[in-house]
Amino acid sequence: MLIIDEQTAGHLLDAQEAFHAVEETFAAMARGQARNFPVVREALGHADALYGFKSGFDSAGATLGLKAGGYWPHNAEHGLTNHQSSVFLFDPDTGRPTAMVSGNHLTAMRTAAACAVSIRHLARTDADTLGIVGAGHQAVYQLRAAAAQRRFERVVAWNRTPGRLTELAAAAEALGLAFETPPLHRLGHEADVIVTITSCHEPLLMAEHVGPGTHLACMGTDTAGKQEIDPLILQQAQVFTDEAAQAVGLGECQHAVDAGQLDVERIQALGDVVTGQCAGRTAAGDITVFDGTGVGLQDLSVARRVAARALEAGRGQHIHFGH
Amino acid sequence: MLIIDEQTAGHLLDAQEAFHAVEETFAAMARGQARNFPVVREALGHADALYGFKSGFDSAGATLGLKAGGYWPHNAEHGLTNHQSSVFLFDPDTGRPTAMVSGNHLTAMRTAAACAVSIRHLARTDADTLGIVGAGHQAVYQLRAAAAQRRFERVVAWNRTPGRLTELAAAAEALGLAFETPPLHRLGHEADVIVTITSCHEPLLMAEHVGPGTHLACMGTDTAGKQEIDPLILQQAQVFTDEAAQAVGLGECQHAVDAGQLDVERIQALGDVVTGQCAGRTAAGDITVFDGTGVGLQDLSVARRVAARALEAGRGQHIHFGH
Repeated sequence: MLIIDEQTAGHLLDAQEAFHAVEETFAAMARGQARNFPVVREALGHADALYGFKSGFDSAGATLGLKAGGYWPHNAEHGLTNHQSSVFLFDPDTGRPTAMVSGNHLTAMRTAAACAVSIRHLARTDADTLGIVGAGHQAVYQLRAAAAQRRFERVVAWNRTPGRLTELAAAAEALGLAFETPPLHRLGHEADVIVTITSCHEPLLMAEHVGPGTHLACMGTDTAGKQEIDPLILQQAQVFTDEAAQAVGLGECQHAVDAGQLDVERIQALGDVVTGQCAGRTAAGDITVFDGTGVGLQDLSVARRVAARALEAGRGQHIHFGH
Repeated sequence: MLIIDEQTAGHLLDAQEAFHAVEETFAAMARGQARNFPVVREALGHADALYGFKSGFDSAGATLGLKAGGYWPHNAEHGLTNHQSSVFLFDPDTGRPTAMVSGNHLTAMRTAAACAVSIRHLARTDADTLGIVGAGHQAVYQLRAAAAQRRFERVVAWNRTPGRLTELAAAAEALGLAFETPPLHRLGHEADVIVTITSCHEPLLMAEHVGPGTHLACMGTDTAGKQEIDPLILQQAQVFTDEAAQAVGLGECQHAVDAGQLDVERIQALGDVVTGQCAGRTAAGDITVFDGTGVGLQDLSVARRVAARALEAGRGQHIHFGH
């Protein structure tokens, strides 16, 4: 089997490839060729850590495996990444392990790619201002992936701690985009596409902040209790997600569904838009929301691409493990 | 991190060490220091395979991880093992992967060890005849581990296809034990300890076959629908298991509970016997049953021992993977 460490995985996956991997995965899910297995997610009661697995099988892409890992909030104090994950791939024909790929960079890339796929298929084609709410580690990935999907001219960004916006500003500048930091209510009105990537537990962006025609990609909510936007936005918007059951359980949709503001039947799979089974945005003035919860098949699909690139390029380490 | 292939794992784990690992794990579970996470088990719809994960965390043993793998029934046609599994261990303090251990031999050893732990704590001390029902790949492991727990003089074994009993006969001879192959109803009466290790879906061993004072270790039933013994035996016996919730869901207990013949409250944890929280066998004439369903923590505990032995012995392969 093939071992690909964090640094090599980082070298081998570019944003465009991650985009195609995730887009194909969403399409395979929509066609019924791929499915995610139940998520295991446990508070360890040790080191304040959350630990678990996301897994699935894509018969179209012959991809089987899991991502294991979680969140260790005190790692940074010791110079380690707080989010720790590893992807394990298996041969669907025999069950034998084929690859272990370090998953920290991959997770960031696949999350950004899902957001980008939503922009490709749901944002207005004339969108010229990109809003970013949140400026943590993941925000720069989101900015870069989003920026590739439309001819944006300007980025408007907001963070609770404004001092942390410097990294985003530098990334925007590197992309040749103007960068501004308006208050949140103005950001909502100025941006045509808004990416939220925070760890909030209450709505930041309110319905009155968001203008007609906006596409929102809510990428921060992946746990029961987290929340980034006003449920009223979901009540008024066309709502899309990676996996509806997960969106209702632990995504941004959880609150609007719980409050009776969003009928589960109204939540559409982004994969159905990719395959053309669903129309996507129906009018330029509509608000569209993508609730990106993150599914195991995204991780597997990017890891599989990395493993294929490694084989082509003679990278990674081959080890004997088999049975 | 450390990689330990199938052959090395086989060399590094002996039955006694597996016994202690599993016994300690059951005790840690009983003390509330260790718990198994929800099991993921999925029919792939490909290659007739079953695939999934068993996982858990033992804070006493600082052991965190999962076993991934499953059953690929056509592997043997291609010279591969049908059961394929790999154990992944993580540092509970940081979430970083510490070891990957090939898990086929380990799974056989930990299953045999669980049975042996039940014999140690539940069988009559004067037991001299060991019964084995089933003669598949796992049966020899069960025989060897069971034989170490009492001064057995004789093995009585039964298999639906009698021709397959030769491997068990050779293993018994190697242990210096007499070996006989009576019909099943006589086996039940002659044996003081009976290990069932089949893949049956209906009861083989009936209540009238089993005499007073017998200890039964039912090791074959690990899936909804499987069954090895008459539920009436469970109705009359003292019943123990590795994890009660799992025994009710997919272990031998499932049928007796469903039929109202076994109150869930009557199912005791073997770990409680190990720690002394529960008395175990209360009379020489009682029938005791251990429903061994197999929990993830067993896999993790033996894998952790193997990893420790490998470090001591300079075995296995160290790779760079970290973040």
